[in-house]
Amino acid sequence: MIRLNKNYEKLQASYLFVEIARRVAEHAAAGSDRKLIKLGIGDVTRPLPPAIVEAFHEGVDEQANAESFKGYGPEQGYAFLREAIAENEYSSRGCNISANDIFVSDGAKCDTGNFQELFADDITIAVPDPVYPVYVDTNVMAGRTGEAENGRYQGLIYLEGTEENGFVPTPADLPAGGADLVYLCFPNNPTGTTASKSQLTEWVDWARSNGSLILFDGAYEAFVTDSEIPKSIYEIPGADTCSVEFRSFSKTAGFTGTRCAYTVVPGSIEIDGVKLRDMWNRRHSTKFNGVSYPVQKAAAAVYSEAGAKETSALISYYLENARIIREAMNKVGFETWGGVNSPYVWVKTGEDSWITFDKLLKEADVVVTPGSGFGNMGQGFIRISAFNDRDAVEEAIQRILKALG
Amino acid sequence: MIRLNKNYEKLQASYLFVEIARRVAEHAAAGSDRKLIKLGIGDVTRPLPPAIVEAFHEGVDEQANAESFKGYGPEQGYAFLREAIAENEYSSRGCNISANDIFVSDGAKCDTGNFQELFADDITIAVPDPVYPVYVDTNVMAGRTGEAENGRYQGLIYLEGTEENGFVPTPADLPAGGADLVYLCFPNNPTGTTASKSQLTEWVDWARSNGSLILFDGAYEAFVTDSEIPKSIYEIPGADTCSVEFRSFSKTAGFTGTRCAYTVVPGSIEIDGVKLRDMWNRRHSTKFNGVSYPVQKAAAAVYSEAGAKETSALISYYLENARIIREAMNKVGFETWGGVNSPYVWVKTGEDSWITFDKLLKEADVVVTPGSGFGNMGQGFIRISAFNDRDAVEEAIQRILKALG
Repeated sequence: MIRLNKNYEKLQASYLFVEIARRVAEHAAAGSDRKLIKLGIGDVTRPLPPAIVEAFHEGVDEQANAESFKGYGPEQGYAFLREAIAENEYSSRGCNISANDIFVSDGAKCDTGNFQELFADDITIAVPDPVYPVYVDTNVMAGRTGEAENGRYQGLIYLEGTEENGFVPTPADLPAGGADLVYLCFPNNPTGTTASKSQLTEWVDWARSNGSLILFDGAYEAFVTDSEIPKSIYEIPGADTCSVEFRSFSKTAGFTGTRCAYTVVPGSIEIDGVKLRDMWNRRHSTKFNGVSYPVQKAAAAVYSEAGAKETSALISYYLENARIIREAMNKVGFETWGGVNSPYVWVKTGEDSWITFDKLLKEADVVVTPGSGFGNMGQGFIRISAFNDRDAVEEAIQRILKALG
Repeated sequence: MIRLNKNYEKLQASYLFVEIARRVAEHAAAGSDRKLIKLGIGDVTRPLPPAIVEAFHEGVDEQANAESFKGYGPEQGYAFLREAIAENEYSSRGCNISANDIFVSDGAKCDTGNFQELFADDITIAVPDPVYPVYVDTNVMAGRTGEAENGRYQGLIYLEGTEENGFVPTPADLPAGGADLVYLCFPNNPTGTTASKSQLTEWVDWARSNGSLILFDGAYEAFVTDSEIPKSIYEIPGADTCSVEFRSFSKTAGFTGTRCAYTVVPGSIEIDGVKLRDMWNRRHSTKFNGVSYPVQKAAAAVYSEAGAKETSALISYYLENARIIREAMNKVGFETWGGVNSPYVWVKTGEDSWITFDKLLKEADVVVTPGSGFGNMGQGFIRISAFNDRDAVEEAIQRILKALG
């Protein structure tokens, strides 16, 4: 008789963005005069830049001819893309990362969700609170937690982000026993905060002296414009012996619907005499079959001269949206975090997050993300995303201010 | 201190096709006058059909314009594709499968590898021998087996494919305790054999009366031209209560490098009062973010009038290759299976499979797949794939016959 993985029963409610989609669909079914403006899920709206579109078409054309047709590619990604990433994202910034350390995939969500498979069932895991829900949910599914109680899973360590620490927890926030594995995400989702070089150095030094591993989610690094703020954890000396980094073309180049990302597993990480890179390679080549060839061609165009210029303009566009949102909220007295070096503005509303969510949905026809969906410490906050067109953002801000005013 | 998933240590050698790639690279480095002909990994060589290329370009163009740009799509796949699959692959054949039961993904390898996550750690699992290695390796990684011994993992049940049963095991091949989960694959990889309606009915009846589940890999169904042979397990009454089916556009339409597949989890499968479809939906939406939009557009074009005609021609082309290979091998006295309703020809060579592999690589500059790579029962066999261009196949056959002659 077949039996199920009972850990799934521990999962609380549905995946956050699925629940938001449900409420939005319900609201849409009720009917409204105004167009709904989505500043919720963090999905880009601007089209793919021309240089990327051109490369994408070229990739498709290659698939149309016997001479240039590509069947199965390397599971790890084509060398042309891995080398472009290694050079442009790492070597050029002085990071000790080579093309061999890079694994191209179809999404950072998949990679951050799958990476935990490489570890023992009974390791201790620390996650920030608030945090992107995938880190938590995938460890629940894998049986690394107990039951949920008051919005938290037993057995998980929560690193509390607070107004006091500016939503940037430090190793001092860990309990006495420490943690074997820590998830970090900077620029942060959902709070939009960034970690300074010294804050990341604290984490790296802690991981090295405790034999712990850091899973660093850098999906939003493209929004860092302040040269003092690290874009990669590998800018910190020694991070290449204790940190895995997740990156994505989703927000960098508008790839949320096109799908391409990568994970960096430095060859210098050894655990019990095993190279972690070899293990991820085994997992990746057994359970994954590479990213669509035309998509990889499109992703590589991000590093062409025209592609770099165009994606940089895209980032600037969304950063300007973030500035508009942040300043408008500040002007009427709301305290905010993020919105600088980040596409997210974290707003303190001081009331239940889902109440604010429902109010903005019903009275403003605007979708935001309830802070409490990211963890208990997000209660009383909402996340406003800068991913939309300028006039939609300006219209949304007017409506939000009216509804909350 | 971080600790690893020790189950990975049980894995024997590297993933089969990685090992083949290693030997091929070594051979290539040694140098040879002749072009290497690959009849190994089962990778298609013919370009994408024109109707598919056209739709693919259209999808890319939509990503180039703000009005038609698509960001995150439904994790389960766009309705236009799910509905086209449900209608063309199932409803039209009288199968009780709807669009809601279909989950679009980037590969059947991923899906067959990931699906085991939904089940308890201690279920009993039966796999055919020989078999596609992913079913076994992913269960080893998940800790559902003991150590390997003489080419088999302790705790797994092996359903032996033999000359006597024509490489189609039946429930009678199970041990007394039965099995909770059974992997089946027809048309079979690697043997190319098909299961008749009555053989599949035996499996479905057995699963229903034992509360067991069948994971049915139908990646090669497009090659079934004999109307008496089921293309889907859902052609068997009751299969929709006990079977999950994996399908792919890889071999059907030349998508190995383009990446699109789907898994069918009928809403009627209930285990312990839980709909299995809901569970897979939770897994899919938590750990996956949908297939690239232009790729889904391209896949849907398989069901257009032109697309259907063109993909059908593609299948016929490869089937003719299979006929040529099979008849040539038979002519010089080798016994074969498959090669009809299947792109694979399973050849009895009577010597160690890797010896034949190396001989063909070195003396014929032809890559095949060693049967023993698929399990102990594959020892003494090789798998020859029909996926190549006609003249390459004809040339390869001449070289193979000379080397083995």
